Amino acid sequence: MSTETPQKDLRDLLAAEVRLAGYRPAHEVVDGLDELTYLHSGPPIDVYRPLPAPLVGAVAAGLLFEGAATTAEEAVAMTRDGRVRLMPCQDTNVAGPLTGLVTPRTPMVVVERGDGRLFCSPMHEGDDGGMRTGTYDVPTLERLRQVAEVVAPALNRAVLETPVPLRPVEMQISALRRGDECHNRNVASTLGLVFALAPALARLPEAAAVFDYFTRTTQHFIAISAAVAKAVADSIECSGPAGLVTAVGMNGQDFGIRVSGLDGWFRGPSPVGPMVALGGADITTASPGQGDSPIIETLGLGAFALSSAPALARTLGFSTDGSRELVEEMRQVCGCDSPVYGLPNQDFAPTPAGIDVVRVADSGVAPATTLGFLSRNLGAGRVGAGVIRMPMQPFLEARKALAPRVIGVDG
Amino acid sequence: MSTETPQKDLRDLLAAEVRLAGYRPAHEVVDGLDELTYLHSGPPIDVYRPLPAPLVGAVAAGLLFEGAATTAEEAVAMTRDGRVRLMPCQDTNVAGPLTGLVTPRTPMVVVERGDGRLFCSPMHEGDDGGMRTGTYDVPTLERLRQVAEVVAPALNRAVLETPVPLRPVEMQISALRRGDECHNRNVASTLGLVFALAPALARLPEAAAVFDYFTRTTQHFIAISAAVAKAVADSIECSGPAGLVTAVGMNGQDFGIRVSGLDGWFRGPSPVGPMVALGGADITTASPGQGDSPIIETLGLGAFALSSAPALARTLGFSTDGSRELVEEMRQVCGCDSPVYGLPNQDFAPTPAGIDVVRVADSGVAPATTLGFLSRNLGAGRVGAGVIRMPMQPFLEARKALAPRVIGVDG
Repeated sequence: MSTETPQKDLRDLLAAEVRLAGYRPAHEVVDGLDELTYLHSGPPIDVYRPLPAPLVGAVAAGLLFEGAATTAEEAVAMTRDGRVRLMPCQDTNVAGPLTGLVTPRTPMVVVERGDGRLFCSPMHEGDDGGMRTGTYDVPTLERLRQVAEVVAPALNRAVLETPVPLRPVEMQISALRRGDECHNRNVASTLGLVFALAPALARLPEAAAVFDYFTRTTQHFIAISAAVAKAVADSIECSGPAGLVTAVGMNGQDFGIRVSGLDGWFRGPSPVGPMVALGGADITTASPGQGDSPIIETLGLGAFALSSAPALARTLGFSTDGSRELVEEMRQVCGCDSPVYGLPNQDFAPTPAGIDVVRVADSGVAPATTLGFLSRNLGAGRVGAGVIRMPMQPFLEARKALAPRVIGVDG
Repeated sequence: MSTETPQKDLRDLLAAEVRLAGYRPAHEVVDGLDELTYLHSGPPIDVYRPLPAPLVGAVAAGLLFEGAATTAEEAVAMTRDGRVRLMPCQDTNVAGPLTGLVTPRTPMVVVERGDGRLFCSPMHEGDDGGMRTGTYDVPTLERLRQVAEVVAPALNRAVLETPVPLRPVEMQISALRRGDECHNRNVASTLGLVFALAPALARLPEAAAVFDYFTRTTQHFIAISAAVAKAVADSIECSGPAGLVTAVGMNGQDFGIRVSGLDGWFRGPSPVGPMVALGGADITTASPGQGDSPIIETLGLGAFALSSAPALARTLGFSTDGSRELVEEMRQVCGCDSPVYGLPNQDFAPTPAGIDVVRVADSGVAPATTLGFLSRNLGAGRVGAGVIRMPMQPFLEARKALAPRVIGVDG
């Protein structure tokens, strides 16, 4: 935390104004990418340990997409040979769900914070899988090219030509009333976005292609929620109180957090489950967790708003009462009530927001997150989803590192 | 009830297959209309009592729309002079929310039951009011013409050109998971429909106009739910057990029901409220209730599914627990559990469905319905909405009329 910046109230930072700015290739909005330098989710990869299979598949897809490899075999070999430099999304202005793979041409959702800074997340490629899930077959590449070359440019134009401001936070607030928790269930927010863009889209020649994309991409909005969460997390990192989670994710090796007022990542092993199978997949093949999407929980969404999404809760094994109890339990680890998000099925009580390392450590309550899991069979994609608990060790270590400052403040 | 038709199980009738068939002018799908013969909601109008103001306005709008009057003054005078013959929607194949006014050219949502019979409801004209709300000013007529001449034909074409079947009941089931109760909150079902039709719509030259229509008509789907409810009510009337409500509505004079196994309408005064004001309107100007939309409750939706729609429930003064208690209370008046609709916020328990006159009379519980209220100031449109109780008297009278048969069955 810069000592020059005056510290701001967490609630004010959580109420940051963010607008949907457009859809652009990553190299236009993220620094440091090149044909062999990509982003991934979670803390930095340990190059002395094997790359998780989903990340191998995703990097291979990226190499093929960028034209840096011409066959799948070549792409996998280049990946395993360490030819691609990998950096964490969250050490830039990106949050990347699942593998979080971002190459220079990857189509990104872009949001703009009130101060003009841009934050982004790779566009969802469709409910059938994609680079994000570690598939790298021909359909994956075809979908990715269609999204990058047709869908994203048309959506970008529709955003620019929509006369009313597109406010993702308002769309999330509406979506909570329509059964999303905005992390693993995004159909309502996606439909809300489609509805808002439809008049502008209808005037474009690519309209039918874009609507076809949405028909098979009802999770589209997760990228917008991840980008919004990254924008807010960055605000907290730059000017918030100490001890709050400002980055959180898994890379398939480790789970990690960054914490305001402290440097670097605090790490522990990536958890595997609990989860339920998706579409008959074999969850015993699940690879340890991957993805930056738990950053959405820090906003007060996802598992922290599970009671808003009864259909998802049921799928993940939570009853109506059980999902409320989870939300209430999360109040023990949070810095405040969300100033923006309400829980429709709990009389619109605010969601708990802002994960506070001291409260996690002192309560012994591990923060929860909804999470999708990928197969450790190369190229096999998604296998399950669940509500998992974050490992405690990184929180305890961060708590220890914070201790002198916290004592300083308290004393 | 025809004695030739074998009696079918209520649950089977409530699970009737219905598909969205299209959008067509009323004269193509409803018998008996002409330039001076229109439909209205509720039981037959008593011509010896004054016409309720919203119906005067709606009939005036209809006369102007049909070209049977050229000025608003002339239209109102013709209406008050009794120049227009009025018939109840529900005595045909129609259910009409609010005034329920249907003229020959009125654009209708059309659904087709499994046996090929068509049922319909007047299209919603927009959240700003319209003929259905008793306005008859220039914007009302402009909107109505736009809907009839541009939006409805384009939607009809989109329905025909959508390759997948459009199943309103599946859309309702999804909408319950997205915060609709499918009577007074319809935004999720409307967005679901837009999403399903968008690929076909995008290929039509009228696409932008249709999306513009939806942007100001998030209640669109109520007409589809009303038509589905009418289709099911007709099945119960034709082949269901005796003693079930097969028509229910208000005409601004009286509330009325029809009951399977009995002839004619059972009537009592139209209730006024309780209600909350909409957009700062003065609810002391509310006209007694009008509309056939409580037919939606007989399906097991609306007030019978209020816990699914927490945002609406809150607006109407119900807490999270209060809306569940209302749903549970409605089980006392219903013939069965819905075979199709579940309550996401009550662990997906089925909604109560099929209003049973004997159970109403014996429990003393008046069935509830969500309802919009109109102003008794001519042309002033909507003023409020609420959860009201249906008058008991018609149920008690129907119970009495049923008594011999019920004793016959029991004894």
